[in-house]
Amino acid sequence: MTGETRETIVARPSAFNQALGIRLVDWVLDRATVELDVTGDHLNRSGVVHGGVLMTLLDVACGYAGTWTEATDGARLCVTLDLMTSFVAPALAGRLTTVATVSGGGRKIFFARAEVRDEAGKLLAMGQGSFRYR
Amino acid sequence: MTGETRETIVARPSAFNQALGIRLVDWVLDRATVELDVTGDHLNRSGVVHGGVLMTLLDVACGYAGTWTEATDGARLCVTLDLMTSFVAPALAGRLTTVATVSGGGRKIFFARAEVRDEAGKLLAMGQGSFRYR
Amino acid sequence: MTGETRETIVARPSAFNQALGIRLVDWVLDRATVELDVTGDHLNRSGVVHGGVLMTLLDVACGYAGTWTEATDGARLCVTLDLMTSFVAPALAGRLTTVATVSGGGRKIFFARAEVRDEAGKLLAMGQGSFRYR
Amino acid sequence: MTGETRETIVARPSAFNQALGIRLVDWVLDRATVELDVTGDHLNRSGVVHGGVLMTLLDVACGYAGTWTEATDGARLCVTLDLMTSFVAPALAGRLTTVATVSGGGRKIFFARAEVRDEAGKLLAMGQGSFRYR
Repeated sequence: MTGETRETIVARPSAFNQALGIRLVDWVLDRATVELDVTGDHLNRSGVVHGGVLMTLLDVACGYAGTWTEATDGARLCVTLDLMTSFVAPALAGRLTTVATVSGGGRKIFFARAEVRDEAGKLLAMGQGSFRYR
Repeated sequence: MTGETRETIVARPSAFNQALGIRLVDWVLDRATVELDVTGDHLNRSGVVHGGVLMTLLDVACGYAGTWTEATDGARLCVTLDLMTSFVAPALAGRLTTVATVSGGGRKIFFARAEVRDEAGKLLAMGQGSFRYR
Repeated sequence: MTGETRETIVARPSAFNQALGIRLVDWVLDRATVELDVTGDHLNRSGVVHGGVLMTLLDVACGYAGTWTEATDGARLCVTLDLMTSFVAPALAGRLTTVATVSGGGRKIFFARAEVRDEAGKLLAMGQGSFRYR
Repeated sequence: MTGETRETIVARPSAFNQALGIRLVDWVLDRATVELDVTGDHLNRSGVVHGGVLMTLLDVACGYAGTWTEATDGARLCVTLDLMTSFVAPALAGRLTTVATVSGGGRKIFFARAEVRDEAGKLLAMGQGSFRYR
């Protein structure tokens, strides 16, 4: 997006990421890590973290993983084409850490995978998808 | 969940659904419709509705579609096993309507599909997944 | 592919489609129907149709649905980016009919969905995915 | 399936696996490797390995990964609930090796991921899904 730099991207998450409390904590070529501290607003009717939160974490982390660029004075953007999430275990509380890696692709499209884990390292959700550069 | 009835489920969405502004507006056997009015908090860095919002709508609608029961004094609960979302077109503003239908399954697991459309009826995202009754 | 026309595409399926016995039986803009008659070679260890057969039917039907062109003297080709299949019920025997429809997309990418049904019309598998034109 | 042992499972693939030439070459708790040597019958209209072949490899490998048991005189069976495949790069020729690992789950359902790679180790397709024990 015009005017954004790597620094502003890290410092100012998108409105929805801010609303959820998602932070970009590590970002290198083809890999990104985002975090979120669970609050009551993230819960579903069963008292565990809503699937929508986990899917958002996977999507956000994958998007960052594919759009890192060496240039610090510009930013790439992407749109998600497809994302599939498997809900391996319920997320209860604490800090959720999501690591995404780019699996392949080219100049126009990339494929990525990501995992959400809790503080004990337990796998909560995993995702896989394709993304198109804008 | 103990103590919930069909009325309380409709009247009191989960914390995350409330935080996002998701409303259950139609609910019958094997089909549910949920709505959300887009606000600035739903947007991503590109200025369109964040994929996490659309995935949440699909997940919520599918979950409702599979858990309607004739009994008004109890409630079924389910967990999502997998959900795949395809982002067909960007969502810009206004009211997003998501209709989910159950495609099949049995006593323990059900399969469902859902679509998010804008006020003009344009397809924005479609989802497909499997869900397990609790 | 150079030299192919709509007629040769219908008359001469790809090697793998031929090996499996998949036939293109209906093809119009944004929709295609393919058929397969179950034989012993299609079965898995449990004695029902192998998931690989159902996924292939979904993929093939979606690919055709997105590549129909008005021109009869040329052919479009596509590659699948992602395909998600949900196995709703076991496929036992007889003729399997798969109908795919294009849900959206543009000049470079399209999204499609498809369903495999048995002779009684029972839903066996459903798929959703994205495809890139070549 | 009644009467099957670990040895017969390895020695006698299912009819469809045999038809495609899929071999189980490594099998331990929560991990399985299957191989296939590409022939002309595996190709699609574009002259590369048909997506159906790659999806079948992913499905087969995941199924094995989740059904290994310590007991050598019996066999577990599973059905696939959902499988999502991302087609990262075209598969051209030679031996395709697919490794699947179980990511989590419990007594009734398991989640698994798998990758198809060519002889040079290049990633061709990746899959993720859920499976139910029978």
